[in-house]
Amino acid sequence: MARILIKGATVLTMEKHDAVFHNGEVAIAGDSIIAAGPQGCVPKNFIAEHVIDGSGMVAMPGFINCHTHASMTLLRSYADDLPLMKWLNEKIWPLEAKLQPEDCYWGAMLCCLEMIKSGTTTFADMYFEMDEVALAVEESGIRACLARGMVGAGPAAERAIEENVKLVKDWSGRADGRITTMFGPHAPYTCPPDYLKRVMTLAEKYDAGIHIHVAETQDEIRQIEEKYGMTPVQLLDSIGLFDLPVLAAHCVHLKQEDIAVLAAKKVGVAHCPASNMKLASGIAPVTELLKAGAIVGLGTDGAASNNNLDMMEEMRIASLLHKIATGDPMAMPSFKSLQMATSNGARVLGLGDVGMLKPGMKADLILVDFQRPHLYPQHDLIAHLVYAAQSADVDTVIINGEVVMEDRLVLTIDEEEVMSRAQESAFRLAGR
Amino acid sequence: MARILIKGATVLTMEKHDAVFHNGEVAIAGDSIIAAGPQGCVPKNFIAEHVIDGSGMVAMPGFINCHTHASMTLLRSYADDLPLMKWLNEKIWPLEAKLQPEDCYWGAMLCCLEMIKSGTTTFADMYFEMDEVALAVEESGIRACLARGMVGAGPAAERAIEENVKLVKDWSGRADGRITTMFGPHAPYTCPPDYLKRVMTLAEKYDAGIHIHVAETQDEIRQIEEKYGMTPVQLLDSIGLFDLPVLAAHCVHLKQEDIAVLAAKKVGVAHCPASNMKLASGIAPVTELLKAGAIVGLGTDGAASNNNLDMMEEMRIASLLHKIATGDPMAMPSFKSLQMATSNGARVLGLGDVGMLKPGMKADLILVDFQRPHLYPQHDLIAHLVYAAQSADVDTVIINGEVVMEDRLVLTIDEEEVMSRAQESAFRLAGR
Repeated sequence: MARILIKGATVLTMEKHDAVFHNGEVAIAGDSIIAAGPQGCVPKNFIAEHVIDGSGMVAMPGFINCHTHASMTLLRSYADDLPLMKWLNEKIWPLEAKLQPEDCYWGAMLCCLEMIKSGTTTFADMYFEMDEVALAVEESGIRACLARGMVGAGPAAERAIEENVKLVKDWSGRADGRITTMFGPHAPYTCPPDYLKRVMTLAEKYDAGIHIHVAETQDEIRQIEEKYGMTPVQLLDSIGLFDLPVLAAHCVHLKQEDIAVLAAKKVGVAHCPASNMKLASGIAPVTELLKAGAIVGLGTDGAASNNNLDMMEEMRIASLLHKIATGDPMAMPSFKSLQMATSNGARVLGLGDVGMLKPGMKADLILVDFQRPHLYPQHDLIAHLVYAAQSADVDTVIINGEVVMEDRLVLTIDEEEVMSRAQESAFRLAGR
Repeated sequence: MARILIKGATVLTMEKHDAVFHNGEVAIAGDSIIAAGPQGCVPKNFIAEHVIDGSGMVAMPGFINCHTHASMTLLRSYADDLPLMKWLNEKIWPLEAKLQPEDCYWGAMLCCLEMIKSGTTTFADMYFEMDEVALAVEESGIRACLARGMVGAGPAAERAIEENVKLVKDWSGRADGRITTMFGPHAPYTCPPDYLKRVMTLAEKYDAGIHIHVAETQDEIRQIEEKYGMTPVQLLDSIGLFDLPVLAAHCVHLKQEDIAVLAAKKVGVAHCPASNMKLASGIAPVTELLKAGAIVGLGTDGAASNNNLDMMEEMRIASLLHKIATGDPMAMPSFKSLQMATSNGARVLGLGDVGMLKPGMKADLILVDFQRPHLYPQHDLIAHLVYAAQSADVDTVIINGEVVMEDRLVLTIDEEEVMSRAQESAFRLAGR
């Protein structure tokens, strides 16, 4: 890990809306940021081994993807435009049943590759074969918060808990601290309260958070209401789950009281607008969640229901969706979507040292090349990032102080190999 | 114009859903397609002067952007997240009032540059200073259908008609036939019936179509209802406007009877989902329009309300929006959005010879590079184009038989100059 100086870039620290410094600079030593801001903010005695010319570029925190299923990248465009249960029963689940560890590795590598190329520096994942995902994270250089997805019924329920405990023990803090872990009970409708309570005990014991799907579909609301006479949020709150650090994905169907609970308990909400739209799950009340003071980040969900892992697109869709959903063109202005994709995403994952460019924080940042026709004229860089940019505009990615992509070339991954091995796995699974 | 052979590409002709030919080929002579389809479809005696290796790429019709205001590209991200009337009164209109012909030229050049780089080969435009837009179209090599935007009240009403007539006389069929023209009465709420009738007479005389905004906002519906006791569609139908070829932009707020009229009169509807979402105008009933047999294409609208001119993104947003709007994940499947962006867009513009790859049609096509992590594995190329691709994946653009972009390098435009001149104009107008 070298001492890096980025010069001449427009620096967007995300500390506040007007923290935009033209011709600014960023200094990195080891895995951390020494200084980030206006020209002259870097100490005079800072000696850089690697100077990056950021002119024409915006330097900003990397994106934080708060909800994914990395290995499912193998299922991208495998099954689309189908009703949810047919999609799951006839397409996704049968294929998942055939997944081997090696498949999950190549799927996760493809996911890490795509994420790095689109400026994501941290992601939160929930799936199985998590050793393979952790390996992909370690090798690719990305940061991740990993959980073993657990279904709390059937023969796999016990094994899932064991594997999640093993994941936490084996991988927490590994890869130079880039890997953190959580417990991943799938959802309130797939994990009965007793099972959730056992998971909570383990999460407390190992000081890990919980990553769980909550209130994603109307069907889930119906099931939980019939069984427990409560909403999913009420059910989880009643067993004390929200007294632990929780990452709640989706949170689409919420009552007013649910919103209050999520805000009061400081639950991290992973809003996944593209997936919710594609599966027609519903529209999460994000403007109300934010108004209530809830912590909301953005997630792409898995590539099977998106179908990419592109956080720039996710920001745009979030802003557009909540404007049309509320009938208010002022709803979800660009800076709010940008916060969800960066600084607030870090809070959702319980990471205090990423998501902003500030001295002492981890050096997770990207350079976005603004010398593109679709980013001219440059009236407003933040609006450009949310409403006009595309992920191919990301030029350079630095994670934990390491240059992972430069001039769009990923330095940690053999792109050709990953694409072809992932395709081999996917086609074998699909019987092609 | 040379004789071009594209070999080894996956050819997507858009004639029907399964017209996807792996390792296919396309032959072009002059401005037209000689053959497009499976290997062997090109006549044995075809001698190419230029052979393009399309391996790893998809060859498909270029996108057709059915509704834009090219010169407004200068206003990209100039004013966002505002209520419509404040946006227009305080931001857009004051700046537009200062536009000089040269500004409109550089704005239009920037628009053409962005469109070519994102795979658009034809666009329909409505604005003023259309000589400048026509020049930009001529020089950049793109195809366009141009109309002078006319407001039918106030001192400019007469001049607008004169300028539209002049546009039609001066530019129809120019630029090797790439330019067609229409009349551009702005909207039923800005052009009274008598004015529209004068425009209709001229359109008939000059054998030109009409490009008009229709039923974009709830406010328009109220105004027309109060004044005429009708919906905008009923009003326009009552004066016989739809008996001419009409390109109706937006069509957001429609009654069941309006849908029937638009379908019966074969009105071309330009659906602009991103703009409608960003301005919170409403959701056009596109699934119902298509069910009724209406002709629907896609448009980005101007960059001031989008904020890019990216048809790949517009396809994705269209599919996602109509799934969530109808609550049906099967709504607006990928192929339908792709048709709106290509073959149906051509019908909306009344162009019979673009939008598909077929012998005898104009050679307007693009090569999309699928050797990208976000386009792997390749289960379904059409789903990939709509749900996963980004416009930077477009590698090569051919318009009217001319290679306009190769390996992402636009051959007809000095990119640096256009970006900097557009920025100069925009900053001067914004008083920066």
